[in-house]
Amino acid sequence: MISKHHVVQKILKNHNNLNYFSTASAFAPANIALCKYWGKRDAELNLPYHSSFSLSLGKLGVQTTISFAQEDHDIIISNNQMIAQETEFAQRIIEFLNLIRPNKHTYFQIQSTANIPIAAGLASSAAGFAALVKACNRLFNWRLDKQELSILARLGSGSACRSLWHGFVEWHAGLAHDGMDSYGEPFTVQWPELRIAILIVSSQPKNISSRQAMKLASDSPFYHCWLTKVETDLTAIKRNILNQEFLLFGRTVEENALAMHALIQTSWPPIQYTLPATLAAIQKIWQAREQGLALFFTQDAGANLQLLFLQQDTLQVQALFPTAQIIAPFLNVP
Amino acid sequence: MISKHHVVQKILKNHNNLNYFSTASAFAPANIALCKYWGKRDAELNLPYHSSFSLSLGKLGVQTTISFAQEDHDIIISNNQMIAQETEFAQRIIEFLNLIRPNKHTYFQIQSTANIPIAAGLASSAAGFAALVKACNRLFNWRLDKQELSILARLGSGSACRSLWHGFVEWHAGLAHDGMDSYGEPFTVQWPELRIAILIVSSQPKNISSRQAMKLASDSPFYHCWLTKVETDLTAIKRNILNQEFLLFGRTVEENALAMHALIQTSWPPIQYTLPATLAAIQKIWQAREQGLALFFTQDAGANLQLLFLQQDTLQVQALFPTAQIIAPFLNVP
Repeated sequence: MISKHHVVQKILKNHNNLNYFSTASAFAPANIALCKYWGKRDAELNLPYHSSFSLSLGKLGVQTTISFAQEDHDIIISNNQMIAQETEFAQRIIEFLNLIRPNKHTYFQIQSTANIPIAAGLASSAAGFAALVKACNRLFNWRLDKQELSILARLGSGSACRSLWHGFVEWHAGLAHDGMDSYGEPFTVQWPELRIAILIVSSQPKNISSRQAMKLASDSPFYHCWLTKVETDLTAIKRNILNQEFLLFGRTVEENALAMHALIQTSWPPIQYTLPATLAAIQKIWQAREQGLALFFTQDAGANLQLLFLQQDTLQVQALFPTAQIIAPFLNVP
Repeated sequence: MISKHHVVQKILKNHNNLNYFSTASAFAPANIALCKYWGKRDAELNLPYHSSFSLSLGKLGVQTTISFAQEDHDIIISNNQMIAQETEFAQRIIEFLNLIRPNKHTYFQIQSTANIPIAAGLASSAAGFAALVKACNRLFNWRLDKQELSILARLGSGSACRSLWHGFVEWHAGLAHDGMDSYGEPFTVQWPELRIAILIVSSQPKNISSRQAMKLASDSPFYHCWLTKVETDLTAIKRNILNQEFLLFGRTVEENALAMHALIQTSWPPIQYTLPATLAAIQKIWQAREQGLALFFTQDAGANLQLLFLQQDTLQVQALFPTAQIIAPFLNVP
């Protein structure tokens, strides 16, 4: 098995220099998978069995500042709260910092602020690792390109490799054992009328992390069919975006999410991220659609939903789901 | 395509005689699929893509009496209520009677009584057609064997072919175009300690009949994997019954139900028989199991659940689900 350390060395080989800044900041958007990522062919390097496709959430994401710490340990501050070293959250960041530490006595202070609803299942760890990698690139003056940054971000959290860009992003699964061909690539089509609404149906913590659940993925009797489904959906989603065919686009995205949750519920022990409140919201969406509203949903590995619709239907969606936060992912984005 | 009429002619060829009785009665039990039936290779003859496996519900089922009607149309009475000719319920029975009518001016009175909870998704049509076929066999003095009756019952409703027997029954999918090798066969192992509880979480009618939903089955991207899953599960369930290994048996049965519902939710338009209340009950079962209770469930194409457990845990299951109706499928059964 190839280690993360090996990959980092390979990427930074010609990029190490001693012109460090004392502090650096960067922002990365959260991203919603439209064609899901489920199942790792390499758990160390976060290499997926299949490609996936996402939409970044514009100004919603994580702003991270990295600087050198005076203390003899890393300091992790998230949303103005000091995070204890032993938490899983801090441990994942510290493990990542171990990969890029110039020497073992150098410690960092990481200060990050997320403007995405807490517990919304919006993959804040993806935005967090993408922002951290971008901030490191500035701090150390690595001058890496985005593709290389995407690979580094993937080592922190798989889907982080998609949060290096705004808009639509494809994560190429790649074939290489060291994952040097597994990174995000922007799919540079704009769709200004597209809207996403974040619908929080429960703020209960998940009963199982997606990291844990994903380990069971390839045991599912449906995994083989899932791989074929993803391939078909990925092609269809890109074609639907190119043609701006919203009804086909929404259908494919929703089909893909339903298939992922179908897959998850066929592992053992069975996993169900869908809560009764999620199901009630889904049935409300289906009823609205039967009455002619062009409204679709996707659902990550959690209980909450992300609604997809076009600008023209904003008032109707607001009336149906008054608490949903509406995002225009292509407007006012740098 | 081979017609139902053709199959009936084939079966009755050497069994027609003129010694009719004026009336005849029969009972058939409801059955719960432990390894589900989903998808028809022939919608006319109700021929499945794959074999399935069920457990009959002992004294719960349908008692049917058939006699000749004086009127110039069939009379259908269910649970002491006259059923209007135009209803789907009556139409399905009349269509079946058309197959066995000695001449087109002979009409029948069908009187059936179900002692299964109404709207429990307990496939009362399966028990109904099995009882009707048995009653016809007596009325016309056909002297058909159970295998032939099973084929006739299948023409009325696929899973009816399993309701000819008590206990465990396998429905062999068969390969023949005319379905003469597609019938039920008892799996003659007793399991006296086994209990089923009928848990009604909703008496809302289904939003789509299983007949309709099943038409979409083979379009699912997971159908191919489902066929493999069923084959594995069917073998495992029989082995678990032979070894009376309840934990493995329960797991396989539950996995199979979850897989069927996963399959259903990946058709388009998506179908979801699971209601929020179903999901709440499922989570209650999973929590109880985590705490050590050997309790599993299965779910047919409907919102309600059937719980599986052993006699020794009856009090605990009753405490968890006080409204559930508990059945001992191997006790006091003829």
